[in-house]
Amino acid sequence: MTGAAKPGDQYPTRLSTTAELLRREPVVWTSPGRGPIDSDALEAYERDGFLVFGDLFNDDEVQCYQAEADRLLTDATMLADERTVVEPSGGELRSIFEVHTVSPVFAELVADPRLLERARQILDSEVYIHQSRINLKPGFGSTGFYWHSDFETWHAEDGMPVPRALSFSIALTENLPVNGPLMIMPGSHRTFVGCEGDTPLEHFRLSLRRQEIGTPSTSALARLAERFGISQVTGRAGAVTVFDSNCMHGSSDNITPYPRRNVFVVYNSVENSLVEPFSSPARRPEFIASRDFTPVRACRRSAAHG
Amino acid sequence: MTGAAKPGDQYPTRLSTTAELLRREPVVWTSPGRGPIDSDALEAYERDGFLVFGDLFNDDEVQCYQAEADRLLTDATMLADERTVVEPSGGELRSIFEVHTVSPVFAELVADPRLLERARQILDSEVYIHQSRINLKPGFGSTGFYWHSDFETWHAEDGMPVPRALSFSIALTENLPVNGPLMIMPGSHRTFVGCEGDTPLEHFRLSLRRQEIGTPSTSALARLAERFGISQVTGRAGAVTVFDSNCMHGSSDNITPYPRRNVFVVYNSVENSLVEPFSSPARRPEFIASRDFTPVRACRRSAAHG
Repeated sequence: MTGAAKPGDQYPTRLSTTAELLRREPVVWTSPGRGPIDSDALEAYERDGFLVFGDLFNDDEVQCYQAEADRLLTDATMLADERTVVEPSGGELRSIFEVHTVSPVFAELVADPRLLERARQILDSEVYIHQSRINLKPGFGSTGFYWHSDFETWHAEDGMPVPRALSFSIALTENLPVNGPLMIMPGSHRTFVGCEGDTPLEHFRLSLRRQEIGTPSTSALARLAERFGISQVTGRAGAVTVFDSNCMHGSSDNITPYPRRNVFVVYNSVENSLVEPFSSPARRPEFIASRDFTPVRACRRSAAHG
Repeated sequence: MTGAAKPGDQYPTRLSTTAELLRREPVVWTSPGRGPIDSDALEAYERDGFLVFGDLFNDDEVQCYQAEADRLLTDATMLADERTVVEPSGGELRSIFEVHTVSPVFAELVADPRLLERARQILDSEVYIHQSRINLKPGFGSTGFYWHSDFETWHAEDGMPVPRALSFSIALTENLPVNGPLMIMPGSHRTFVGCEGDTPLEHFRLSLRRQEIGTPSTSALARLAERFGISQVTGRAGAVTVFDSNCMHGSSDNITPYPRRNVFVVYNSVENSLVEPFSSPARRPEFIASRDFTPVRACRRSAAHG
């Protein structure tokens, strides 16, 4: 049994049938010249739904984030923390949520002007942190993430009205073709793919480990891949990928000995703050979907990047 | 509890501790000029343990093999056949063994001079078919194969004395970086990595779906990857990869909509025919490890490739 869409819901999902809807809102809300991203790059982001900045963070900074990640991973209190997610097969750590709250180093990272100014530029408003986390693929068989649009989940389960949000992924390790890097369908961000099925109560307990509800049908995925193709995002540790909240993306498992780690920061426009979930019986916990809509203030000016 | 190695066993494995042993036998048994592989390619094979032939089969031939694979896959009697292996999660077809017996088209393929002459050249003897199969990764989440050396299994579970065997993988679909292509550690074929653990009775019923026993330790894999790196084998449908029986290889899962299909043919030297398993309580079935040591005879001369 699946429920009915809420009256007036522009992006109905988790129903008994699926639809592919054209996105109504812009991807880039601002005009060029109003931030650090140049017009060519902004155009590429608008077209593809993502953009890679190869050298936003230097090696020393990456080392500092790596050391902080190591510290969290070996911290016994973190392992018992509800914000910590383990592999579906049990045991190994997969994600730590709300890293900007548990760590002063990552608190500084999420307020770093290099991220913040770019987020504000694209969304043309003040922004707040909807979610932050470290993802770990320690290798030797750690699982991937199946295809999904973040916005589909944030809309259905968190009550995010429209796709005026974006994610930064800061690579702490090298992303190779072989260690399960991010795969994106470039251009898919303009299509909202409704997903079949009812959202169960406390769905997040399962979905953060292995998502099944909130994933598109194989026929929708085949159509999208046919139309847009699949890009693999590889690059050095320190590279930063920014991607629209409605990109269709996923990743393979990682059987190599090369771990894959990144920090995710999701900024949402303060003009798009959460209401009640559109297709879920209850809100998810605040460590997954924050309801503190306070605009982020830049923590410092970066010496290297002004 | 794990057993003791058989007296005189050069390649002990499935014990309580693991060892990395240097391979004693040659990789290339012949001298150059005695077959279709030129000396540069033969040297590369000796060094890396594998070799790719980009255009051994043309598009028409690939289409014919694809059509035959489709026919087998939709054949209700095949689904019920013991030689058919399904995905660990159940349902979807993963492999069909002994394809040269179930299909006249693949019977011709395994006797194709383009494969046979190359196998004979490398192994410097008549050869017989140890195993043949189609592997399928239909996409949308089909699982990969964890790191393993084929020879480790064939020695332990089938009684193959030494690594004087090789596999041909004939790609029926394009191998992309994103759809779980073959990963090989080039040069690893010279190291025999013993694996921990006792081989359970009828282990093959599980191991063909998801292997756990007969896989190297993470520390051994990390050492090998550090030393040899990891190559991803990508290329067009019709490309053929030949690899030594002791290569460390594996593949990621495939969440893309692009299926990945290939035909595997394993040739063993008739001078290396099977004895009793070295580290297993019983032989595996003959559809997995043939004990018909009759040399393969070339079925025809290929018009295109002489």
